[in-house]
Amino acid sequence: MWLARWGRITRPAFAAACRAYSSTPARNPTYASLTPSILKQFASVLSTPQSSLLSTIPSETQQWRVVDDTDLEAYNKDWMGKYIGHSACVVRPKSTEEVSSIMKICAEHGLAVVPQGGSTGLVGGNVPVHDEVVLNLGSMNRVRSFDEATGTLVCDAGCILQTLDDYLAERGYMMPLDLGAKGSCQIGGNVSTNAGGLRFLRYGSLHGSVLGLEVVLANGEILPLLQTLRKDNTGIDLKQLFIGSEGSLGIVTGVAITTPKLPNSVNVAMFGVDSFDRVCQTARHVRKHCAEILSALEFMDQDSFDRVMHNPSHSFRDPFEKRYPMYVLIETSGSNQDHDQAKLQDLVEDVLENGIVADGVVAQGEKQAQELWSMRELVPESLTAQGKVYKYDVSLPLEHMYELVEVVERRMVDTGMKPALKQPGFVKAVCGYGHVGDCNLHLNVVVDQYSDDVEAALEPFIYEQVQAMHGSISAEHGLGVMKADKIGYTKHATAVKYMEEVKRLFDPQGLLNPYKFLPTR
Amino acid sequence: MWLARWGRITRPAFAAACRAYSSTPARNPTYASLTPSILKQFASVLSTPQSSLLSTIPSETQQWRVVDDTDLEAYNKDWMGKYIGHSACVVRPKSTEEVSSIMKICAEHGLAVVPQGGSTGLVGGNVPVHDEVVLNLGSMNRVRSFDEATGTLVCDAGCILQTLDDYLAERGYMMPLDLGAKGSCQIGGNVSTNAGGLRFLRYGSLHGSVLGLEVVLANGEILPLLQTLRKDNTGIDLKQLFIGSEGSLGIVTGVAITTPKLPNSVNVAMFGVDSFDRVCQTARHVRKHCAEILSALEFMDQDSFDRVMHNPSHSFRDPFEKRYPMYVLIETSGSNQDHDQAKLQDLVEDVLENGIVADGVVAQGEKQAQELWSMRELVPESLTAQGKVYKYDVSLPLEHMYELVEVVERRMVDTGMKPALKQPGFVKAVCGYGHVGDCNLHLNVVVDQYSDDVEAALEPFIYEQVQAMHGSISAEHGLGVMKADKIGYTKHATAVKYMEEVKRLFDPQGLLNPYKFLPTR
Repeated sequence: MWLARWGRITRPAFAAACRAYSSTPARNPTYASLTPSILKQFASVLSTPQSSLLSTIPSETQQWRVVDDTDLEAYNKDWMGKYIGHSACVVRPKSTEEVSSIMKICAEHGLAVVPQGGSTGLVGGNVPVHDEVVLNLGSMNRVRSFDEATGTLVCDAGCILQTLDDYLAERGYMMPLDLGAKGSCQIGGNVSTNAGGLRFLRYGSLHGSVLGLEVVLANGEILPLLQTLRKDNTGIDLKQLFIGSEGSLGIVTGVAITTPKLPNSVNVAMFGVDSFDRVCQTARHVRKHCAEILSALEFMDQDSFDRVMHNPSHSFRDPFEKRYPMYVLIETSGSNQDHDQAKLQDLVEDVLENGIVADGVVAQGEKQAQELWSMRELVPESLTAQGKVYKYDVSLPLEHMYELVEVVERRMVDTGMKPALKQPGFVKAVCGYGHVGDCNLHLNVVVDQYSDDVEAALEPFIYEQVQAMHGSISAEHGLGVMKADKIGYTKHATAVKYMEEVKRLFDPQGLLNPYKFLPTR
Repeated sequence: MWLARWGRITRPAFAAACRAYSSTPARNPTYASLTPSILKQFASVLSTPQSSLLSTIPSETQQWRVVDDTDLEAYNKDWMGKYIGHSACVVRPKSTEEVSSIMKICAEHGLAVVPQGGSTGLVGGNVPVHDEVVLNLGSMNRVRSFDEATGTLVCDAGCILQTLDDYLAERGYMMPLDLGAKGSCQIGGNVSTNAGGLRFLRYGSLHGSVLGLEVVLANGEILPLLQTLRKDNTGIDLKQLFIGSEGSLGIVTGVAITTPKLPNSVNVAMFGVDSFDRVCQTARHVRKHCAEILSALEFMDQDSFDRVMHNPSHSFRDPFEKRYPMYVLIETSGSNQDHDQAKLQDLVEDVLENGIVADGVVAQGEKQAQELWSMRELVPESLTAQGKVYKYDVSLPLEHMYELVEVVERRMVDTGMKPALKQPGFVKAVCGYGHVGDCNLHLNVVVDQYSDDVEAALEPFIYEQVQAMHGSISAEHGLGVMKADKIGYTKHATAVKYMEEVKRLFDPQGLLNPYKFLPTR
């Protein structure tokens, strides 16, 4: 209904936005198309083609599993229903050698390939854009080794993050990363997208914790970089190139990662505060008191919190007596429960007495801790339950972090998509939450249905704002198909030129994950 | 005198060692030679050529500072006196633009260049091999910005590590790395060599803590990657390529790095233990009790400790009543002195009561802490005071870490260079010390004079041993000229092939730091 008011919009940025909006890139005609004869070749190099090779193309000799389009939907369509490809073939190799053999065949014919992990991405990086062969790593899911003295884990790329975390927990360790999608996402996908998540604050980037990688290149060569040493300064650290390059330079098949000890003592607290400025002040005090035991420093705004409280699939009780404009969640992980609780106690007294937070709760026991965490972790799901969601994942200097949410909501009002601030309209809500400790904001815009008009109002407006604030248009979600042509908002043209040259070096035919990550030329 | 016994050596590995030993690589004739006209071009792009451009080539018009060979010795010769080049020209640019202009001129003429930082390296990476132009970054030493809220530092590459640490200390922060050479080494060199050092255990690799880099490429292009965001997943993380590639892909001119808060409480303890097995057991208990506050976990053997005690430049008092085969030094850094001391107390009681350590001392106050640290940090200097030192810096699986020292000492006895284990001969000592928390061993072989015979007995023997033990032949010191052709002991040929292609991509003329890092073809 608010669309009626679009006529009011005259700002030049908005006009530019409408022009810049683009649909799916056209299929590159230089890529080969799949044929029964290529499928036969695939089948010949797979140990169990009846289960590892799925295609809608009929097989006269039953060499692969013939399926229909709906059987392939889970591989062709992303979980948000936003990106939908049309591959006729999914390969699920069981070993690095099988991945290598499949890639050799693809390179021979010039077939494009999309490497696929747990498909939990948000930028369409994990599904085909057109008819690319889907190379799904899900059947490679073995732990290869674990060293209990040093905490070094070596595993297949298709291992699910939660499974690895459970495996390590039994041995007194934990994965150095954790994210909402942990139950489905795979470590190979985590590495390929340089996943950040909830433990980044404490355990840092995968560029630091990944010790080695095994990678299959576009030509089928196996690049054996699966080192397990903490320190190794011999030559260019090539593995770094594959961390965060979204499967466009090679297919990660094996991962060696250093894992931290499981903490003895975990505490979770939540604070209600009156403004984003107060969030920042709280963060400073948290860092001072909790210092080395701090393991998460998250925030969400009232809109996000409200949605979680109203999530019909859960029945949360608001831990506070009234609602606050902002909420801060912190977690500490340490080795001594008494010490950690004393630090937390000091923090609580400090921020309450100094009026920095309006109210606060500290979880008593694991159940309450899990409940507080759920309130933060269920924000995305709770927003999705309300409609379709435009998701933006950005890094911003701390002082500008929430400003972006306010600017975008104001724009939604200005464009007539919301009647007023905090009033739902065609756009139901503009919410902000995320990893305040890492200056990583998740900006979510909730609508009834995806629409070109809303998207045109949001993009490139948001990217321009982020650029002006010296932020990154993708903090942890990557570029995928959604932002492939937006890289210029964060990276200099010279940098992009060299990225393209590195891409050409490792994948001269451009077979791996095309139409994504870097601008299509 | 022990050389007389060389005739006994019959092991095939030793014969191979003698054959493999190679001298300085020949000058590549495709590189141009410096001329007065090129020097004039250099002078024309420098703001202060009289101080920034030094050459032994006469200048008719006084456009640069004419010097003699001895004036250039500090730039041509490494601090150990092991690697000596013959450059006739040193450029000390004052800005990134000057570095860029100089590189454009070098690329135009095909002049080879050695980027030079604080020249504290150990593998000859920082001095010319022949007549390469020395591009010394020492005049670029400004802090560009520091954000007190997030701890993000942006600075020139030529800033000295200690200077930066002092600058940060005044603001409540510290550099995430620390090493013996901190008083002279430069952050650009630290980044280019991926320096590890004493804080690696706690604050991790520079691949995790460096946020952005400004790099001048071989063709003079400025690659602007000087991000200050903690998270930024937009495209290939190109900066990673320049971390640890020893100036062979580009010249780091600016660094953005995340810095941790200065701890409120620092404690240092040292233990005397009876064997390397006990070192490993001690390490396990230290990790258990000190966990999140542990900031260093070092070891040294008795030979190393003895040399420090006998160092004529210092007068240490042995903190223990008797000597032990091994010493473990630990440091904790935390936010609460009471909590940290309680953790340390628990540790001390545990390891003493369980007989894991034979004796232990905990520093009372900063002076004692500094003294214990000096005993570890002065090992290299104390060994150098005894003669010339062959230095090997390797990573090994924990269980093999000290085995290498024992194997090498036994070889020195077998080859007649030492009369017996622990008895000095032509080889005065074979010592082991290092970062046991990172499985990083510094193996030092002390001799009266460098000799081809000793080197031939040590190499490739040591590299072969490291390879057999699945270690790295360079943990933190890099490859330089010393190990350029040894990379195959740690890295697979396929990996080396792609390293060479990356090198060609960024430096097609091969102008940057030639004869080093990667094998010379």
